Amino acid sequence: MIRKENLNKPLRWGLVGGGQGSQIGFSHRDAARRDGNFQLLAGAFDVDPDRSRRFGMEELRLNEDRCYGDYKEMFSREAEREDGVQVVTIATPNSTHYAIAKLALEHNLHVICEKPLTFTAAESEHLKELAEARGLIFGVMYGYTGYPIIAQARAMVERGDLGKVRIVHMQFSHGYHAEAVEKNDPGLAWRVTPEASGPTYVLGDLGTHCLQMGQLISGQKMESLSCMRSSFVEGRQLEDDAHVMIRYESGAVGTLWTSAVAVGNTHSFKVEVIGEKGTIRWWDEHPNQLEYAPLNEPFRKLDRAMGYLYDSARFERVGGGHPEGYFDSWANIYRNFGLAINAAQDGMQEHLKNIWYPGIDDGIEGVRFIERCVESSDNGSKWVAF
Amino acid sequence: MIRKENLNKPLRWGLVGGGQGSQIGFSHRDAARRDGNFQLLAGAFDVDPDRSRRFGMEELRLNEDRCYGDYKEMFSREAEREDGVQVVTIATPNSTHYAIAKLALEHNLHVICEKPLTFTAAESEHLKELAEARGLIFGVMYGYTGYPIIAQARAMVERGDLGKVRIVHMQFSHGYHAEAVEKNDPGLAWRVTPEASGPTYVLGDLGTHCLQMGQLISGQKMESLSCMRSSFVEGRQLEDDAHVMIRYESGAVGTLWTSAVAVGNTHSFKVEVIGEKGTIRWWDEHPNQLEYAPLNEPFRKLDRAMGYLYDSARFERVGGGHPEGYFDSWANIYRNFGLAINAAQDGMQEHLKNIWYPGIDDGIEGVRFIERCVESSDNGSKWVAF
Amino acid sequence: MIRKENLNKPLRWGLVGGGQGSQIGFSHRDAARRDGNFQLLAGAFDVDPDRSRRFGMEELRLNEDRCYGDYKEMFSREAEREDGVQVVTIATPNSTHYAIAKLALEHNLHVICEKPLTFTAAESEHLKELAEARGLIFGVMYGYTGYPIIAQARAMVERGDLGKVRIVHMQFSHGYHAEAVEKNDPGLAWRVTPEASGPTYVLGDLGTHCLQMGQLISGQKMESLSCMRSSFVEGRQLEDDAHVMIRYESGAVGTLWTSAVAVGNTHSFKVEVIGEKGTIRWWDEHPNQLEYAPLNEPFRKLDRAMGYLYDSARFERVGGGHPEGYFDSWANIYRNFGLAINAAQDGMQEHLKNIWYPGIDDGIEGVRFIERCVESSDNGSKWVAF
Amino acid sequence: MIRKENLNKPLRWGLVGGGQGSQIGFSHRDAARRDGNFQLLAGAFDVDPDRSRRFGMEELRLNEDRCYGDYKEMFSREAEREDGVQVVTIATPNSTHYAIAKLALEHNLHVICEKPLTFTAAESEHLKELAEARGLIFGVMYGYTGYPIIAQARAMVERGDLGKVRIVHMQFSHGYHAEAVEKNDPGLAWRVTPEASGPTYVLGDLGTHCLQMGQLISGQKMESLSCMRSSFVEGRQLEDDAHVMIRYESGAVGTLWTSAVAVGNTHSFKVEVIGEKGTIRWWDEHPNQLEYAPLNEPFRKLDRAMGYLYDSARFERVGGGHPEGYFDSWANIYRNFGLAINAAQDGMQEHLKNIWYPGIDDGIEGVRFIERCVESSDNGSKWVAF
Repeated sequence: MIRKENLNKPLRWGLVGGGQGSQIGFSHRDAARRDGNFQLLAGAFDVDPDRSRRFGMEELRLNEDRCYGDYKEMFSREAEREDGVQVVTIATPNSTHYAIAKLALEHNLHVICEKPLTFTAAESEHLKELAEARGLIFGVMYGYTGYPIIAQARAMVERGDLGKVRIVHMQFSHGYHAEAVEKNDPGLAWRVTPEASGPTYVLGDLGTHCLQMGQLISGQKMESLSCMRSSFVEGRQLEDDAHVMIRYESGAVGTLWTSAVAVGNTHSFKVEVIGEKGTIRWWDEHPNQLEYAPLNEPFRKLDRAMGYLYDSARFERVGGGHPEGYFDSWANIYRNFGLAINAAQDGMQEHLKNIWYPGIDDGIEGVRFIERCVESSDNGSKWVAF
Repeated sequence: MIRKENLNKPLRWGLVGGGQGSQIGFSHRDAARRDGNFQLLAGAFDVDPDRSRRFGMEELRLNEDRCYGDYKEMFSREAEREDGVQVVTIATPNSTHYAIAKLALEHNLHVICEKPLTFTAAESEHLKELAEARGLIFGVMYGYTGYPIIAQARAMVERGDLGKVRIVHMQFSHGYHAEAVEKNDPGLAWRVTPEASGPTYVLGDLGTHCLQMGQLISGQKMESLSCMRSSFVEGRQLEDDAHVMIRYESGAVGTLWTSAVAVGNTHSFKVEVIGEKGTIRWWDEHPNQLEYAPLNEPFRKLDRAMGYLYDSARFERVGGGHPEGYFDSWANIYRNFGLAINAAQDGMQEHLKNIWYPGIDDGIEGVRFIERCVESSDNGSKWVAF
Repeated sequence: MIRKENLNKPLRWGLVGGGQGSQIGFSHRDAARRDGNFQLLAGAFDVDPDRSRRFGMEELRLNEDRCYGDYKEMFSREAEREDGVQVVTIATPNSTHYAIAKLALEHNLHVICEKPLTFTAAESEHLKELAEARGLIFGVMYGYTGYPIIAQARAMVERGDLGKVRIVHMQFSHGYHAEAVEKNDPGLAWRVTPEASGPTYVLGDLGTHCLQMGQLISGQKMESLSCMRSSFVEGRQLEDDAHVMIRYESGAVGTLWTSAVAVGNTHSFKVEVIGEKGTIRWWDEHPNQLEYAPLNEPFRKLDRAMGYLYDSARFERVGGGHPEGYFDSWANIYRNFGLAINAAQDGMQEHLKNIWYPGIDDGIEGVRFIERCVESSDNGSKWVAF
Repeated sequence: MIRKENLNKPLRWGLVGGGQGSQIGFSHRDAARRDGNFQLLAGAFDVDPDRSRRFGMEELRLNEDRCYGDYKEMFSREAEREDGVQVVTIATPNSTHYAIAKLALEHNLHVICEKPLTFTAAESEHLKELAEARGLIFGVMYGYTGYPIIAQARAMVERGDLGKVRIVHMQFSHGYHAEAVEKNDPGLAWRVTPEASGPTYVLGDLGTHCLQMGQLISGQKMESLSCMRSSFVEGRQLEDDAHVMIRYESGAVGTLWTSAVAVGNTHSFKVEVIGEKGTIRWWDEHPNQLEYAPLNEPFRKLDRAMGYLYDSARFERVGGGHPEGYFDSWANIYRNFGLAINAAQDGMQEHLKNIWYPGIDDGIEGVRFIERCVESSDNGSKWVAF
């Protein structure tokens, strides 16, 4: 069941941010290009208008008249064109997401936005209202969710292979910032600065990823949490480590740990779901495998593309054994964004329900999680309702 | 630096509990016998006096007159003999530890006791006073602490290889009791019954092990904690799962997770210590290895008995590569108990300071931890001072 | 040192084979498209002319007049166009490689060919002569060689980090064909049929991959070998398992194991190089890591994109932790094919020497290895000179 | 099904070799003592008579009159005593095994001997004749075979869980001797000296271990082999690395690799058996686990003492999760030696058949393997019949 190429006529696509030196910009462009479903036609790639235009023309070979100095200009000018962009990706610092996304929606553009979505949950809720009112797709780029084995994990929980979920462990920790490296790393500097990053560093930058993944797989809803934040590196304004204990509405419990000072770790982004009848574990550094233990039996490693997986997990690009990676996950998500946008444009509401993609609700949940964690940790780690 | 055999004249040794069907009794006898430092001469092995005597005579080939019906008889009769026992091991259910240990100390016996030590920290404190007043050694059988690589871990933290400790993660979780197996397992039945087990099941039975190991390695002192307990299996009175968040006096933070419903796990007894300059990880299922990552370098697995270890970790019984196991750890601890008792009997106080063994302070800390966890979890998981 | 996009003006590219149902065809197209260096303009995708044309038009949206019925037509018609293709990829069964590649070279096309290259080493040598005489690039698609960590491995051996190489272990084994699955799998059926596959199945299909990787990393030249082939599945004409012992000119020794009946394995494609001063190990299922042990020190896992790697290994597409996979390796190789073709077309012979890609010599070596293995195994596994 | 202690009245036991500084001597004494089945009463521990007697008296607290200057004296004097030893363990350099074992058998002593058993297979055959003629037990100390999970592996093959065996891979490799460390290591010096060690170093010292384990688990009989030996370290007389390809009578094939220059390895003693319907893998550094993959399913790790194992593998000393190690394996073997000797003394021939222990046939097979490997490697690695 290998995926086919070129399923759709390409969508006309624009990009805000993601210019010179941006790793995430490259990831968006690569993902959009992989299946030929998006054609990049316009962009405002940089806060510096000249640098923005130069990047579009020289690096991306776009037409000069569609390389814009800022996103406002882009949205209004593209809206005037018959062949104007239909969908826009926002890959800018967190502080700007809300304003840009709002304006994009107001110009009737489908939106794909980086996470964490906004500074406040209220802002995210507002974006949701706007998108729904206009029938626009709003994707939030939780880029690790596109692995086929994640679909397997979701299916296993949904079908009851694990029984009732009891415990959910989530973590996303690395050790890159165990010292004050922000002094020489502008990409980190804005992330630890409240003005650009919002009220948190690792909770928003990393924690929202594993939270979203944990909830996606486990299907649990948070009831309350207690959060303990630390800034271990001297002079760092925002937390570089956080532990959270969580109670779920179902009676399940769990933890979330996120850190940038976890020496020795590169991407300890892991999710474990323990149920009455089984346990599954996933680690994004080896994303083609899912550890699974049925009750009273030993763990085994389920592998992508094998015959024993559920159909919903069989959308591989290449046969088993060959490792798929980060870019393939992103491409799978963009593929689904594309399918969803097509369905929305064609008014196929029923079909749309069957296309999964990380969306506005994931975005809202992430922002709310950050708000609650801050509320708890700023008040002696007291338990707060979700 | 292989350990020598027969370092001492054997100590005259008695055993309370550990009779027919007891796994822990076998472990104590095996450990005591390994280096020839303890000679089992007397015992009260069972609550049933007949079964106790029969076990001693038939299974252990002891002299009939030293196989006792109960521990009171044993202590008073042995005290009358010139060749009476010098040290006694207590391997009975938790509820009886305090009374037996107290009486043993009052009969001037050195004591080796199972954990958790007592039901209340006050009781443990009292035992400490008694032992100190009489110059008696009080060992508490945290049997996993005798591995050479644990000595390496301790040395690495003490010498500053990790820098200031920031994070400590501890867990001891298994999946054996994910269903109501206590119905057919008497060894578990008493552990989930408050009268015999005390106020907790997994916190006391498992959690104290990883707590003690985590503190032994990291050298941290707890300041406050929040604990979340669950009894997932229907009808189970005591918790079968607990998560704890911990703040340490030094500013470090951490978690402890203990569970008997962690399907797929056999012995997920793990400790991770993350410092400014390095991280170490240990897992008791593979106890000859210690994972270590220096700052900005990848993890490596330090192996028992290798030339690159510190001297204090070079007390192996067999060369590298050959796995040492649970019984070897126990034997190492009994060896140190023996050395300590010898030193105490000979009044060698200075020498005594250099002999490490898990002792009364570890026992007290474990009981206090249980008390605080119960206090927190019974009050909405509120944070409580340690 | 993230790779840049769009380094070159795209090369005009054609494809032979790789049509409907071909996994490898997708891989070639995806790799060629990733960096925008190749533009697919023409093709002969299938032995059935109609199916070939339909695939090109419908699936790949090519112009009708450049979707050809067979490769001969394609080469001659493209040669007549001013904008005719400059380079052609051959992704057809092994038996056809020689004739197609020869004709392509005779039409002055650069060639990228699947492996094993030809049925005989003499044929491969002839292709080399043809390519060299015309200054054409001849790439052979050893697609696993494009991982950055492979560049690290090569650099470590070249710089002497391992000292003199003593032992090389290579294997590529899976268990997909432990039963007679060829009855329902046409993609396997031709691979176990001598007429289409040549004299071997696993030696050519899998063994040449790990041989090429082992030699690429270790830099060793084979002196002699002994090969033991088995067809374990009843009725299978070609071997489904082979073990080879190898002596190298340098005095090093080693083994190669390749199998399609290794139950439980998905892609046990591994290379281990042991030298006087260190050992490295690589496994393609987790291709971002390289295990490395210096003399008298424990193994560690080097990770892609980390600061401790050599510069030559820092051509990642995304930061450390994020897994790169099979498609990224292919894309890296196509990128180098593109750079080499550009350099060749511009006559930049000096620059060309610095661009590494798997080429005609790798192809020749693989075919010769197959020949020698067959010679040995058909003669009681006697040792044969290489 | 925990093992009971003290099953038998202790056997009167003597030891030849294993004196001061001997690691293997400690292992034998520890194993014999573990279950109380052997009582050490006499010994000739050293080639130096004085050192021998002193070691017995001072280190082992034996009676002075049973600490002998050499083994001849010991055998003749013990034979005169009513309470003379019944069984003797031989833990001396390889060159002396034959003479000592022969004399012991001639004194009607049961024998437990280190491996490799003798220098020639003819000598080993002779010992077998002698032992059988007198109804004496002859154990050969393949000390890694006593792990419960090895019994599981054997049972799985015997019961057909793997189907017909196709491939057997064996290895025992370490990196301790990658340099000329014998200059400062007397324990290694004799092992690389032909006069004391025999015609091989690693083949005999390590290779026989994995050979015996591979055959024990797989039940295969060798038909022919080709062996490639190397002495990588300058000045070393005997091989420090050997690769062997093996054909089995059943049509199965396989390899054996043994090395002392495998940098980074401590004990890469591994056995893999691949059958039509499943694969199992064992690694002695983690001896409580057995990897198992049924056809078309992923690998899982079977764990010692779990309910899903066969009864024949349930002879654990402690519950699951707790690691058993090298000393426990040895103790299990000594326990079986003891049971077998008791059965032999009591004339219980039927019962004797059900007691497994590594015996004279394992010893013979090992020596013959060494002979054939030498014959092959000394003749250009030609294939030789077994």
